[in-house]
Amino acid sequence: MTTRLDRAREQMRARGVSTMLITPGADLRYLTGYHAKPLERLTCLVLPVDGDAALVVPALEKAAAHAAGVELDLLTWDETDDPYALVADRAVGDVVAVDDQMWASRVLALQERLTSARVVLAGPTVSALRMRKEPAEVQALRDAGAAIDRVHARMGEWLRVGRTEREVGADIARAIVDEGHTQVDFVIVGSGPNGSSPHHEVSDRVIEAGEPVVVDIGGTNAAGYCSDSTRNYVVGADAPADYLEAYAVLEQAQAAQRAHAGPGVTAESIDAVGRTVLAEAGLAALFIHRTGHGIGQETHEEPYIVEGNDLVLEPGMAFSIEPGCYAEGRWGARIEDIAVCTEDGLEVLNTRPRGLVRL
Amino acid sequence: MTTRLDRAREQMRARGVSTMLITPGADLRYLTGYHAKPLERLTCLVLPVDGDAALVVPALEKAAAHAAGVELDLLTWDETDDPYALVADRAVGDVVAVDDQMWASRVLALQERLTSARVVLAGPTVSALRMRKEPAEVQALRDAGAAIDRVHARMGEWLRVGRTEREVGADIARAIVDEGHTQVDFVIVGSGPNGSSPHHEVSDRVIEAGEPVVVDIGGTNAAGYCSDSTRNYVVGADAPADYLEAYAVLEQAQAAQRAHAGPGVTAESIDAVGRTVLAEAGLAALFIHRTGHGIGQETHEEPYIVEGNDLVLEPGMAFSIEPGCYAEGRWGARIEDIAVCTEDGLEVLNTRPRGLVRL
Repeated sequence: MTTRLDRAREQMRARGVSTMLITPGADLRYLTGYHAKPLERLTCLVLPVDGDAALVVPALEKAAAHAAGVELDLLTWDETDDPYALVADRAVGDVVAVDDQMWASRVLALQERLTSARVVLAGPTVSALRMRKEPAEVQALRDAGAAIDRVHARMGEWLRVGRTEREVGADIARAIVDEGHTQVDFVIVGSGPNGSSPHHEVSDRVIEAGEPVVVDIGGTNAAGYCSDSTRNYVVGADAPADYLEAYAVLEQAQAAQRAHAGPGVTAESIDAVGRTVLAEAGLAALFIHRTGHGIGQETHEEPYIVEGNDLVLEPGMAFSIEPGCYAEGRWGARIEDIAVCTEDGLEVLNTRPRGLVRL
Repeated sequence: MTTRLDRAREQMRARGVSTMLITPGADLRYLTGYHAKPLERLTCLVLPVDGDAALVVPALEKAAAHAAGVELDLLTWDETDDPYALVADRAVGDVVAVDDQMWASRVLALQERLTSARVVLAGPTVSALRMRKEPAEVQALRDAGAAIDRVHARMGEWLRVGRTEREVGADIARAIVDEGHTQVDFVIVGSGPNGSSPHHEVSDRVIEAGEPVVVDIGGTNAAGYCSDSTRNYVVGADAPADYLEAYAVLEQAQAAQRAHAGPGVTAESIDAVGRTVLAEAGLAALFIHRTGHGIGQETHEEPYIVEGNDLVLEPGMAFSIEPGCYAEGRWGARIEDIAVCTEDGLEVLNTRPRGLVRL
C-alpha cells in the first residue's frame, strides 16, 4: 500500500524538495496520524526524500506519541537539550521545506542551523495531497455536513425576537456538539447590521423582528474533519424589500456556481460565475469576498475559490461555495454549502433549503 | 496613561528593534485588545519604534476590528491584493521583529520583501511586558484558579472505579465551563500506567480500584486568562506502597518550591530546590520534566521554570509549580499550583489540599 508519506516523497521529488520538516498541526496529523498539541516544546517530523523518516519529540511526550500509534523512529530530547540541532542533523539536502504554519521561533532557529540549505514552504507539497480527498475523508466530510445540517434544522428552537446573538450562539454551540461534532469551531450569528460584517461572530445585540440574520456555523467531528454551512433567517416580520431582492439574486448566483463547479473547471471560474450573476443585477459591489475555501482537517485550506487561482478542479477536491451580499451597516446575506468534486460533477454535502427561512 | 504599545516601544528601543510585526494570537491581543482568529488572510500589527502603529486587516474584517474597539489606523486589503507589500511598506528600520508564533508562510514572505532588514523574534520584547502581570491580569488569573479549584472539588461526582478516562474527562470538561471558563483547554485523566505519560490526555482505559489517577485540567475564562492545576486521586482501594512513598516526597518537594519562590530568586533555582528534595529520597530520575511554565493569556508562556533559566523573579510574574514523579508503565504523580510572585513572597492561586485524595 502506498502510504501518505510515500506520496509526499513523490511530490517532494517532483518539486525538488530534499527534506520536509513538519510541526504539530493538520499537516502532521495528515501525514502521520499524530494529533500533537501545538505546544512550546518542539515536535517535528523529519522526512527526507530518500531514507527513513523520524519524529523528533520531547522525552516526556514519547509515550503519548507511541500511544497515538506513531510508527516512525522517535528521536527524543530532554528538557535542556537543543532540539533544533537534532532536527538539523537529520535534515539532508539543500532544499528544506517547513510546514506553512511552523512558528517563526522555529523557522528562524532552523534557518540559523541550516545555513547551506534554502528554506522553503512545504505547503504546496502537502496541499497537493491534502487537497485530493480519499474516499474515507469524503465520508468524514459528508458526516460533518449532515451534522451541521441537523443544527440548522433546529434553528427555530433558539432564534427568536428579543434574544441576543450571544444567547442564540450559545445554544447553537451546544447543538453543534450534540449533533455530532467533538469541537465547536465558530458560531456567527449576524443580525441586522452585524450581518454586513462577514467575520462578525456574536454580540449582545438583541435580535429584532424583520431583521435578516446570517448564521454561519461549523465544528470538527471525531474523525477530525470540519463542517461549515451558512443559512439565512428572519424572525417575526418580513425582511426589508431591498434585502429580499438581493437575496433572490444571491440564490441564483450560488445555484449557478453549484451548476458550474466540477472536474476540469478552474477555481477562479466558479468565483467569476457567481460574480457575473450578481453584476447583472447591479449587485457586484456588495459581494466583497472570494467565493470559497477548501475544507478538510482545517476549516480553511486549499483550494481557495478566488480570482487568480487557475487550479483545475479534480475529483476529491472539497470546498465551500459561499457568495454573499453585504449592505454596510444594514444587513448581510450569505449562502454556503460544502461541495466535493466527483468524477462527473459535484456532490453538495449540505442539503438544507437555501431560501430565506422565516421563523 | 502609558499604554502597552508605549511600553512595547520602550522595550524595542532598549533591544534595538525598529519595527514589530504581530499577527493574531496572544501577543496581538495583549498589545491591542484585538482577539482576531488565526485565519489564512493576513492581519498584522505594524508597530514602528517611532511613529504611528497600524493594523493591516482584510477588508472584510475591517468592521470586526472596529467592533473589537481597535483604535489604530486600519490598512485594509482586498481579496486579490498583496498584503505583505502593505506590511513591508510600513515596516521601517533595519531590525524587524516578528511574533514568535507567526506562520512560516508569513515569515518567508516578509523576509523576501524586507531584504535590507534583519528579521528577528519579537518574543523577548513582548514577553518582557506580558511576563509582568498587571493587577487586573492577576485578578483574572485568581478567578481562573478559583474556577478550576471548584472543578477539582467536585471530582468525587465523576471519578469512580469502572468508568473510562474518557467518560470522566467529558464530565470534567463540562464542569470546567460550568464553573467559570468559556473554553476547555485540556483535560488529562491519567489512570495507572497512563499517569506515567505526562502529556497523556484521556483514553478508553477503565479506571480500576487502587490505581493512582493524575488529573491535570485547565481552561480559559471570559477575561481571556488561563487556569491549570493538577491533583491526584485514588479510587476504591489503597494505592501501591511505592507510589505512596514517592507521593509523600513529592508533596515535600512541591512545598519546598513554594516556600522558596518569590521576588529575587531565579527561575532555575525553584527547579533545583524540588529536584534536590527528590534526589535526597533517591527519586531524582523519576522527575523527567521541568518544574513549570508561565501562564496568562496562554497556558504556557514565559517565564519557564527550568534549569538554565537564570531570570530573576519579579512581582507580577505568574507561573506553575508542578514537580512530578513517573514510574514508567506503572503510575505517575504530579502536584501543580499556579503562583504569582508578589512584593514580598508568593501568592498561590490554587488552594485545594495537595495530598492524595481517596475517593
